[in-house]
Amino acid sequence: MTLRPLLLACALSATALAATAAAPYRSMQQILDASPASDWRTPDPANTLYMELDAGRVVIELAPGFAPQHVANIRTLAREGFWDGTSIYRVQDNFVAQFGDADADDAAKARSLGSAKRKLPAEFERDATGLAFDRLPDSDGWSPQVGFVDGFAAGRDPATDKAWLAHCYGVVGAGRNLDADSSIGAELYVVIGQSPRQLDRNITQVGRVIQGIELLSALPRGPEPMGFYAEAAQRTPIRAVHLASEIPEGERTRLQLLRTGTQTFNDVVEARRNRRDDFYKRPAGHIDLCNVPLPVRVAKD
Amino acid sequence: MTLRPLLLACALSATALAATAAAPYRSMQQILDASPASDWRTPDPANTLYMELDAGRVVIELAPGFAPQHVANIRTLAREGFWDGTSIYRVQDNFVAQFGDADADDAAKARSLGSAKRKLPAEFERDATGLAFDRLPDSDGWSPQVGFVDGFAAGRDPATDKAWLAHCYGVVGAGRNLDADSSIGAELYVVIGQSPRQLDRNITQVGRVIQGIELLSALPRGPEPMGFYAEAAQRTPIRAVHLASEIPEGERTRLQLLRTGTQTFNDVVEARRNRRDDFYKRPAGHIDLCNVPLPVRVAKD
Repeated sequence: MTLRPLLLACALSATALAATAAAPYRSMQQILDASPASDWRTPDPANTLYMELDAGRVVIELAPGFAPQHVANIRTLAREGFWDGTSIYRVQDNFVAQFGDADADDAAKARSLGSAKRKLPAEFERDATGLAFDRLPDSDGWSPQVGFVDGFAAGRDPATDKAWLAHCYGVVGAGRNLDADSSIGAELYVVIGQSPRQLDRNITQVGRVIQGIELLSALPRGPEPMGFYAEAAQRTPIRAVHLASEIPEGERTRLQLLRTGTQTFNDVVEARRNRRDDFYKRPAGHIDLCNVPLPVRVAKD
Repeated sequence: MTLRPLLLACALSATALAATAAAPYRSMQQILDASPASDWRTPDPANTLYMELDAGRVVIELAPGFAPQHVANIRTLAREGFWDGTSIYRVQDNFVAQFGDADADDAAKARSLGSAKRKLPAEFERDATGLAFDRLPDSDGWSPQVGFVDGFAAGRDPATDKAWLAHCYGVVGAGRNLDADSSIGAELYVVIGQSPRQLDRNITQVGRVIQGIELLSALPRGPEPMGFYAEAAQRTPIRAVHLASEIPEGERTRLQLLRTGTQTFNDVVEARRNRRDDFYKRPAGHIDLCNVPLPVRVAKD
C-alpha cells in the first residue's frame, strides 16, 4: 500500500490519453524539455539584483518597464552598497519578507542614501498603449484583464489603457508610508504567501524573485501582528545586494527565463489550466494569474 | 523621512472618512473588538488536533461535516498515537508541508496503522442540500460559488448541489496516491503557499490549521522538485499528534473562532473587500476566497 501522496504525480497512462480528443497531455516539464532555445531569454545583468545571505543568493529581476524611476534608484543604491550590512527585519507569515535599513525611521541612526533620490513619484501603473500584453484566457475579480508582460504577471484595464504588475508570490515591491509617493526603493518587500492582490495599484512593484525565494519564505516569522523582529539579533543579516552587472562574470548565476509570449508558455498555461494526468480526476479548466508558473532554468554551457 | 513601509497601516483620517457616504470605516481589528461574545465559538475538542513539535504546538480544526470517514480515521490514529515520533518529511516551497510516516511506502519499515481503516472512500465533496452556506459576494474561476461553511472556506455548485472545501492557506488535506480512494488520513499535508485551488475536488480535505501555521510554513524547504527531504535527519520530528479531548483541560490551547455566519464576519469581509484606510489609495472592491481572514482569538478567562 503506497500512502505517500504524490500530489504532483505526472505519470501518463492510456486512460489519461484517451480522455481527450486533442493532443496527448504533456506535463509542464515535458513541454519545457521540448522547447527551442529561442523561447528562453537571459535577464539583463544591469537589471538583476543579487541579494547575498549567509544561506545563499536570492536573484531578483527588476522591472524597469513598470517602475523606471524606482529601478533607477535601486540600481544607484545597489552600486553604492546601500544594503550591504543591512538586514531582513520583518517576516510576516503568509504575507511578506521585508528588508533594508531597519533604522530608516531613526534620523540619528539611518544610513546614508548616498546619491540616490529622496523623492520619487508613485509608479503604480503604466500606460498600456502598444504594450505587448499576453492575456491569460481566465479572468479574476481583481482586474478587468490579467496576463503577462515580459515575464511578469500583470493586470490591464482597457477602459483606462493602463497596466500594472500583480502582487503574486515572489514579487518585490517598494515599501512606502501613507503617501503614495513615499517609496524610493530603499525598503523592499517580497511576497511569501497567498497573493495580496489588494495591493495592486496601491504600491510600486519593482521586480520579482527568480531564484532563491525559499531563502526568504522559510525565515522565522517575527512577532504578530506585522512580523517586525523585536530585537536586532533576530534579523537576518544581508551581506550585500549588488547588480549582476557589477559582479565578475564567473560569479554570476546564469539563469534563463521562459518568454511569456511564446507557444511554449501558452502550452504550459494550458497544461496547468487542465491537468490531464493520472492524479487529477477533475481538471479545473481555469487558473489564477498567480498560480501560473514562470519557468526559470539554469543556462547550459 | 519615514521610510519603513507600513503596508497594513490602519490609521483613520478625516480624508478616509469623507471618502464614503456610508458608515465610518472600521479596520478588521476594530470590528472584532466590538463583536459580541456570541459571535465566537469554541472548536470541539473531539475534533481538534494538537501537533506537538519541538518549536511548539500546531492546532488543527477537523471538518467532519465534509470528510466524516477521514476524520473518524484520523481520530482513531491520534488516539492510538500513530503520529507520535513521526516527522514532517516534505516541505515544498509555495505549496505544502507534509507529515506522517516517512516509511509508509516501505512495507518492512512502515508503522502499524493500528485499528484505523485501511480503505476509505474519497470525500472530495458533499451534498449541499440544506447546508448553511454563507456566500461571498465575489466569485472566482475555480468554482461556480464560493463562501463559508462553519468557518471553512468552501465552493458550491448549484447545478449538482454539491459543496467542497477550498484549498486555501493553512488547509489540511489527506495525501493520496493516484487512485481517488487511496487516502486514509495517515499522511497529511498543510498548504503553505499560494492557494492550490486546482486540488479542489481532487483530494479529500480534512480541516485547517487555526494556530501555529508559522511552525510549518517557516520550515526549511526540501530539495526540488517536490520538497521531500533526502535524509531522515533533515526531517522535523513530531513529538505527538493528539486530540484536544484526550489532553487534560489545563493543557489545552483555549481558542475561539469567529462564526462565519455573523454580521461581524460580513463586516470583516467588507472591510477587506474595500480597505478605506489611509494606506489604500484604490480599494479593490473584491476579495478572493482565500484572502478572507478567518479570525481566531485566545479565549478570555
